[in-house]
Amino acid sequence: MGSDFHFELISQEGRARAGIFTTPHGNLLTPLFAPVGTQGSVKAVTPEQLEALQTNLILANTYHLYLRPGDQLIAGLGGLHRFMHWDKPILTDSGGFQVFSLADNRKIDSDGVTFKSHIDGSTHRITPEKSISIQENLGADIIMAFDECSSPYDLYRNETALERTHTWAERCLQAKTRPDQALFGIIQGGVYPELRERSIDYLTRLDFPGYAIGGLSVGETKAETLSILELMDARLPENKPRYLMGVGSPEDLVTGVLRGVDIFDCVLPTRLARHHVAITRTRRLNIANAKFTTDALPIDESCYCYACRNFSRAYLRHLVLAKEILAATLLTIHNLNTLITLMTDIRVAIIQCRYAQFAAEFLEHWESA
Amino acid sequence: MGSDFHFELISQEGRARAGIFTTPHGNLLTPLFAPVGTQGSVKAVTPEQLEALQTNLILANTYHLYLRPGDQLIAGLGGLHRFMHWDKPILTDSGGFQVFSLADNRKIDSDGVTFKSHIDGSTHRITPEKSISIQENLGADIIMAFDECSSPYDLYRNETALERTHTWAERCLQAKTRPDQALFGIIQGGVYPELRERSIDYLTRLDFPGYAIGGLSVGETKAETLSILELMDARLPENKPRYLMGVGSPEDLVTGVLRGVDIFDCVLPTRLARHHVAITRTRRLNIANAKFTTDALPIDESCYCYACRNFSRAYLRHLVLAKEILAATLLTIHNLNTLITLMTDIRVAIIQCRYAQFAAEFLEHWESA
Repeated sequence: MGSDFHFELISQEGRARAGIFTTPHGNLLTPLFAPVGTQGSVKAVTPEQLEALQTNLILANTYHLYLRPGDQLIAGLGGLHRFMHWDKPILTDSGGFQVFSLADNRKIDSDGVTFKSHIDGSTHRITPEKSISIQENLGADIIMAFDECSSPYDLYRNETALERTHTWAERCLQAKTRPDQALFGIIQGGVYPELRERSIDYLTRLDFPGYAIGGLSVGETKAETLSILELMDARLPENKPRYLMGVGSPEDLVTGVLRGVDIFDCVLPTRLARHHVAITRTRRLNIANAKFTTDALPIDESCYCYACRNFSRAYLRHLVLAKEILAATLLTIHNLNTLITLMTDIRVAIIQCRYAQFAAEFLEHWESA
Repeated sequence: MGSDFHFELISQEGRARAGIFTTPHGNLLTPLFAPVGTQGSVKAVTPEQLEALQTNLILANTYHLYLRPGDQLIAGLGGLHRFMHWDKPILTDSGGFQVFSLADNRKIDSDGVTFKSHIDGSTHRITPEKSISIQENLGADIIMAFDECSSPYDLYRNETALERTHTWAERCLQAKTRPDQALFGIIQGGVYPELRERSIDYLTRLDFPGYAIGGLSVGETKAETLSILELMDARLPENKPRYLMGVGSPEDLVTGVLRGVDIFDCVLPTRLARHHVAITRTRRLNIANAKFTTDALPIDESCYCYACRNFSRAYLRHLVLAKEILAATLLTIHNLNTLITLMTDIRVAIIQCRYAQFAAEFLEHWESA
């Protein structure tokens, strides 16, 4: 890590942490939630609308951008920040999770993964070195080590995958050349405490500037997730940011922060928006529901987002039924606002040493959807 | 027309006119182009984005809003302005054109039209009185008389339709109750000069506050359109605004203004945007074209819209291929900006008495798409 990056904890309450992560494209105030822009666009909103939401960090997917439009094309146009017109920090994943999700269309060996494109069936190969090369072409501020994901309950495969993940993490570190990118290691190990501990110990010896928690929220129980998070929180270095990948429901953000997580990302708020579901701090509303037909209230009376300040549930329901694009845009704005303002309030609560109470009240009021 | 409406010509050059049309929701500076929000949303953009484009007037469709969500529902929620969060002027059509477009699914008699909904096949009936009632529930600033449209070349049907259009225009005037809406008469008559003249004479005797030119750009030749426009320009009262319905390519705006038209509307810029086509003042670009793959230029280097200030053709092409909603949003913003700034420049040119030259140069550079 060059001097471009610096992580400072400014406040702690119990295991909850408030910090500042300095990057070449600005400071990230943690804990934070990052919206996902899989293909170089956070679906249904403009960068201008994202900025109005005080979005700080966004995630883009290496696998998708490598296949289309291609990382070299993006590099030739000045990198991903310029390409998608986002001057704040960007994080790219390694491509590992997407490639392993291809199931029958990929083959793993000790050197890397060969797979078929979901777009045109063409054959491609990603190795740790290739993943870093792609991510260097994209030019995100935070990049991820290429890892092997497994199903959470297969001990043998988790052990094999873990060995590869560790070897590949070292190869990623060696392949990396850009000083303006922070490479995070990814802890794997499924639901197995011994594997998680082994992974933490191995990767912390490599001294990454941050650690991602992989392989959670992929099928295991909530109790298992929380237990693994607690184990990791106790063992990970305090002075490095921790990033819980793919987690983003309001209750998971609150419980994650209680267990020492600093960074979250998830497609949930944007994907639900395109399926007519609004997220508030206390519940989910399917805005297509007939009960909203003549409802003059905004999605959430306590919300100050552009959608809630200006539009009724009745109008949003009409837009959904009429298949108007504006429905997706307004619901995306609202859902992102819910998560981003939640994280801001969480951060302030930690700094003011009242987060334990905040979290207890929040979780009490949450109606599971 | 109550005192809520006032039309003043502030400048004329040849037949081109610059004016101000005062409405309860603000002044319309003419000539102007109105984007179309068929179902109460200009597709793919927010009202905030429309305002940033200096949009003045938008059009909404009576037929669509009557069927879904229903004009009474909209009235109950405070009218269309509040429903769709648009505080500037709105124009609604009469439903006539949409109903007549249903072809086999409608029956016309001297009292009105019975038709089947394109949504659920349910049977409905619109009479002149019903059209006014719906438009009063919606509450647009400018509303349209219920008319019968015909194919432009059928003399017999045009004559019959014209009689009905005239009788219905009188019934609309009698049915109208709201002083805060201006009801425009619609001139019909196909490509037949005698019919157009008869229609103008009949409807001007009824002293509408404005006149719409219906039944043009529906299949006749450009030469016929222009000849009818010239005939109408010479015969329509000078002190009333003229609205050419459904016309909106840049060259048609320029030639329409040359023939005394004040108001235009069209789905063209928003529809083309959703089909990856960008409109500039000189041409159309299909942004999905492979030649834009690595093109770092904006759609139009001389354009200052949000899309052109911030995004390359290569990025827009990527968004189109990746089926990202943002492609439609950015192209819509660009296309509307092209037409709206064109109309502003036209207005200034008229006021500065250099529109003849402006129009000649414009039409010379236009590459037909």
